[in-house]
This record gives sequence, C-alpha cells and structure tokens, in this order.
Amino acid sequence: MIIDCHGHYTTAPSALNRYRSALLARIEDPRLPFPELAEIDDVEIKTSISENQLRVMQQRGIDRVILSPQASNMGHHIDDVATAVAWAQASNDLVGRAVELFHGAFAGVCQLPQTPSGSIAECVAELRRCLQRPDFVGCNLNPDPSGGYWSAPPLTDRSWYPLYEVLVEFNCPAMIHVSGSRNPALDTLGAFYLNADTTVFMQLLGSALFTDFPRLRLVIPHGGGAIPYHWGRIAGLATRRGRPAMPGELLENVYFDTAVYHQAGIDLLVRVIPRQNILFASEMLGAVRGADPATGIDFDDTRHYVESGDLSPGERRAIYEDNVKRVYPRLREL
Amino acid sequence: MIIDCHGHYTTAPSALNRYRSALLARIEDPRLPFPELAEIDDVEIKTSISENQLRVMQQRGIDRVILSPQASNMGHHIDDVATAVAWAQASNDLVGRAVELFHGAFAGVCQLPQTPSGSIAECVAELRRCLQRPDFVGCNLNPDPSGGYWSAPPLTDRSWYPLYEVLVEFNCPAMIHVSGSRNPALDTLGAFYLNADTTVFMQLLGSALFTDFPRLRLVIPHGGGAIPYHWGRIAGLATRRGRPAMPGELLENVYFDTAVYHQAGIDLLVRVIPRQNILFASEMLGAVRGADPATGIDFDDTRHYVESGDLSPGERRAIYEDNVKRVYPRLREL
Repeated sequence: MIIDCHGHYTTAPSALNRYRSALLARIEDPRLPFPELAEIDDVEIKTSISENQLRVMQQRGIDRVILSPQASNMGHHIDDVATAVAWAQASNDLVGRAVELFHGAFAGVCQLPQTPSGSIAECVAELRRCLQRPDFVGCNLNPDPSGGYWSAPPLTDRSWYPLYEVLVEFNCPAMIHVSGSRNPALDTLGAFYLNADTTVFMQLLGSALFTDFPRLRLVIPHGGGAIPYHWGRIAGLATRRGRPAMPGELLENVYFDTAVYHQAGIDLLVRVIPRQNILFASEMLGAVRGADPATGIDFDDTRHYVESGDLSPGERRAIYEDNVKRVYPRLREL
Repeated sequence: MIIDCHGHYTTAPSALNRYRSALLARIEDPRLPFPELAEIDDVEIKTSISENQLRVMQQRGIDRVILSPQASNMGHHIDDVATAVAWAQASNDLVGRAVELFHGAFAGVCQLPQTPSGSIAECVAELRRCLQRPDFVGCNLNPDPSGGYWSAPPLTDRSWYPLYEVLVEFNCPAMIHVSGSRNPALDTLGAFYLNADTTVFMQLLGSALFTDFPRLRLVIPHGGGAIPYHWGRIAGLATRRGRPAMPGELLENVYFDTAVYHQAGIDLLVRVIPRQNILFASEMLGAVRGADPATGIDFDDTRHYVESGDLSPGERRAIYEDNVKRVYPRLREL
C-alpha cells in the first residue's frame, strides 16, 4: 500500500473561494453581514477530486492521500478570530466530505483557525472537533501565522502546549506548514515554505518540547526544508552547544516527508535521514505541477524518485506505508 | 592554489568588541560621548590570525582566504546610521590591517553600514571607500537588516541599485549574508543564515535584476541554503511561471559556495549545480567548529569533502581557484 501523507485540496469547488472572498470583504467593511458558504453538491466535490487527485493517484499507483485544505489559502494573517474559525470550519468540513465520498482513498488533516494574535482556545476547539471524526488523522500547524514576518513565538513556547495536549490525547501528529507569504521579500512556494521547515527544526533542536511531550510527533514537510542538505552543519551546531547526540535525538519525534522534486534531492534525503523517519509524500497538485522538460517526469511524481532511490524493498515499504501508519496510527483503522 | 572565498574575522582582538559595546551603550544612553576604538597593536592582530585562521589554513592546505568582518556581529538591526557607519569602518579597517599584515594569505571583503531604515548613501560611500583599496575584493550584502523580521524590500528592488552600480564599476561581487537573528523564532546559524540564502535566490528568480546589471555577480553562501536540495522544485516553479529556462539562466550571475558540512551535502551540490558555479569555501572558525565525533573530521573541513567528491582534477581546480578568481577578478592582481 502506498500512502501519500501530504496532499492539499487545491481543487476545491469554487464556492469555497467565493466564501473566502466574502469573508475578506467583511474584514474590509465590517458592516457587511457574516457570509454563509453556498451549498456545494456532492457531484461537484466528486468531480473536483476524481478529475484531479484521484486521476493522478491512479496513474502513479498511490492508494491513499492524507488530504488537508489548501495551505497557501489558510490565510492566518487575517487577525480576526471569527473569520479564522469560520474559514477553518468550512475548509475542514469540505475536506471531510471529500474523505467520506471517496471512502478509503483519503484521510483528513485539518487546518487550524490560527491568527497572528494567536488565541489558542479556538484552535484547540477546532482541532478537537475535527479529531472527533475518526477519518481525520492530524492537523497542519503554522509556525508563522503572520505570513512571513515571524512574529509568533517558537513552537517550543508553552503558549502552543494546549494544542500538543490534544494531539497527544488523540495520538495524532501535526505537520508543520505555513500559509501564503504576505511579505514581498519572501516567495511563498520557493522560499517561505522551505524556510519554515528549516526554522521549526532548529526551534526543536535542544528544546524541552519532547521531554514535556514524549509522544508528540511532528512531520516536517518538503523533505525537511534545508535540514537534510545541512545535516552536518546541524550536527556541528548541536555538538558545539553541548548536545552531540542531537540532531539524532529528535528523530524519536520528528519525521520528514519526500516532497522533494528531483532524484538528487531524494537520494540525499534517504542517504542522510534514517529511513524510519521518512514518510512518502508528493504534495501533488500543489506548488509544482507539470513535467520536467529535461526528463518528461512530473516534478511532483516523487514515487518515481523513491522507486529509483537506493532502497531495499523493505525500506521502500517503510517509507510508503509502515512509517506513515506509525506516525498517523489512525490510518490503521480506516 | 586553493582559495576559500568565505571567511570571517571571528577572532578579532577584544578591543573591537569593547568598541561595539561602547557604541551600543551610547544607543541606550545618547548623552554618552561617541566612543573611539582603542589602539590595537599589530602583534595582537598577527596573533589573532596566526593562531587561528592561518593555523587551520596550513593544516588544510588553503592558500588564501577572503576575509570579512564577523557576520553575526554586523548588527544591522541597530537603526542608527552613525553607529552603523562607525562600526562598519572599524570592522573593515581591522580586516584591512589583517590582510596587509599577512600579505597574500588574505583578501578583504567589507561589511556595509546597513540599517533597517535602509539609507543607502552611507553604504555606497563605505563600499566605495573599501573597494578603492585593491586588496578588498567584494562586500557582504545583508538582505534583512532587521535581523529576522524581513522588513526590507527584496534585493531586486531599485532602492538597492546604487550598491550594484558600485559593484559593477569595481567589477566586484557581493556575497549575500545576514547578521545575527534578533527574532526568538529564528536560530541564527541553523535557520536564519540558510533561510536568507534560499530567500534571496527566490527573489532573483524571474526578476529583472541581471537584465539591468548583466555583469553583477552574487555569491549565495552556505551551499545556497536549501536551493540545490530543492533544485527540482525551483525548476518546476520556474516552469510553472512560464520561465522554463530558469533557474539555469541565473547561473550567469549567481554562484554557490561549498560551506556545507558533510559529504552527502557536497555530493549533492556538485551533482546538481554546474561546476563552474561552485566556489570553494569553508567559513572556517565560523558557525561550526570542532570535529564530527562519528568521523573525526572537522565539520567545516570542506576541503576534505571536495577532495572526496565525484570531481575530476580540473573540476576540483575550478572550484578551488579558477571560479573564485573569475567571480573575484581582483584576486588575480594580489
């Protein structure tokens, strides 16, 4: 079985984006009534998935995708809790409907109603609401709700702990994932996403987070940002800071996905990071679509790179299935 | 000949740091007189270099290091132009003295008096002052003087153009290098430095900068941050944005150094990035000091990794010398 742990519902029916526009219009003009999401027919959802994610899954032999709302659209920079809650609920509920309509092909991961001011209570409530559904298996956690100004405390700060308590209670992981950059200095897909991955790993290095939450599991997407490429640097910094067993210690709790879009990158990842810490992912129909003109292979066809990588059948199976189910144990029940 | 294009004077005599402390004290209490740098004896400078950088150069067979002031101490977040100018001048002059005292073993790269408010005139003046010395061969350029809040416009913004005009006039490159992080979310050495490298490459991708300055050369340190590891992602984004020849086009003007501290990282770098775009560097006596307990090799002994990499003698020579001299042509005159 091949499970892709990192997919976003980037092809959601247009009513969802119209709802977002109405929410944003009300931010501009608070006299407007709070909008309602238009009804979306099952057929629309089915079409939006079967012509896109499901088509690619069948082409590539991917059996299941862990699906969350479109990351770049989470829009956590809008500092209004009611808007954040309404938007997260609508986005998550639509993912939930897709998961139900394609039973077995998907599992849900929820978006949290984060805001730059960072009220955590609503995030806890929405996380709990979603995880009460057995077909939701985790959440996305944004370490920079400001959208590129890095105004939030590090994820090791105690202000985040209520979220970790819920994750541990439900035995579900979080994937680290920022939303779109609002900062003209930071390209969303090429810089901000990768920077966030690198940044969070360094926040975790040497922190007490996993002493406080030994069962908490975090997934760093996009192959861990810059971390595996600079594994020697990180090891050297850990040694210099008197923690030579780091960064390896973190690997009890931290996992990297395979959303790295060329063979050389995947080869580095599987060379450097212990194979039990690598989870298959493509983030397909995400940041990068289309084929590499040089090879004819879709950039995000990471299965191709994993198949070509220096891995035994058992190691490949661990990456495709066993590791994913270990990190997302609810998948075993679906 | 082996030239290390990325060294910082991290071992400067303590009078320099005392001067910095006095400058900062005056920021806290503007009634204090503007401080003066205490006299520093040639012997002190000689000792600070011969026991450190020179010792390591001799151990590793490095003939010349391009030396700039300590990056994490540039402190561009202090938003006071007079302080920034005094500090840059003192730091650069000390590098200049080290370069003179060890004739041939070093070349200088200057720090600019950048500030978050971003007055460019003083930066232009200091750059010009330093490049009028033939033994200064370039500058460090900080894309985020705020120290981790990314408040500056991208380096492709026209507000930076006066600096590029001077660099082109003197036929000298800039190395992209942030200073210390002031942001508790961003680890300086493990996250902020690498994020900045990634961020700037993405600012350049698809911009008009090198149309406007076809002879401008920029060096992205630390092996290019996350970029080579995600070369497929970047190529895919460029293709999606209608510029499929990117990111290759940038390689007329953009270079990566080898400050990557493990074999797997260097192997990826030389596999992905054309060899004429790779410059030897170790940033030794920098972020990461000491030996990898697993191998006994100094983390920052990048010569070891380059020697072990899949490179012909000619390619190795290009990385060690030819490319560095092409990007820093003034080295040929020293």
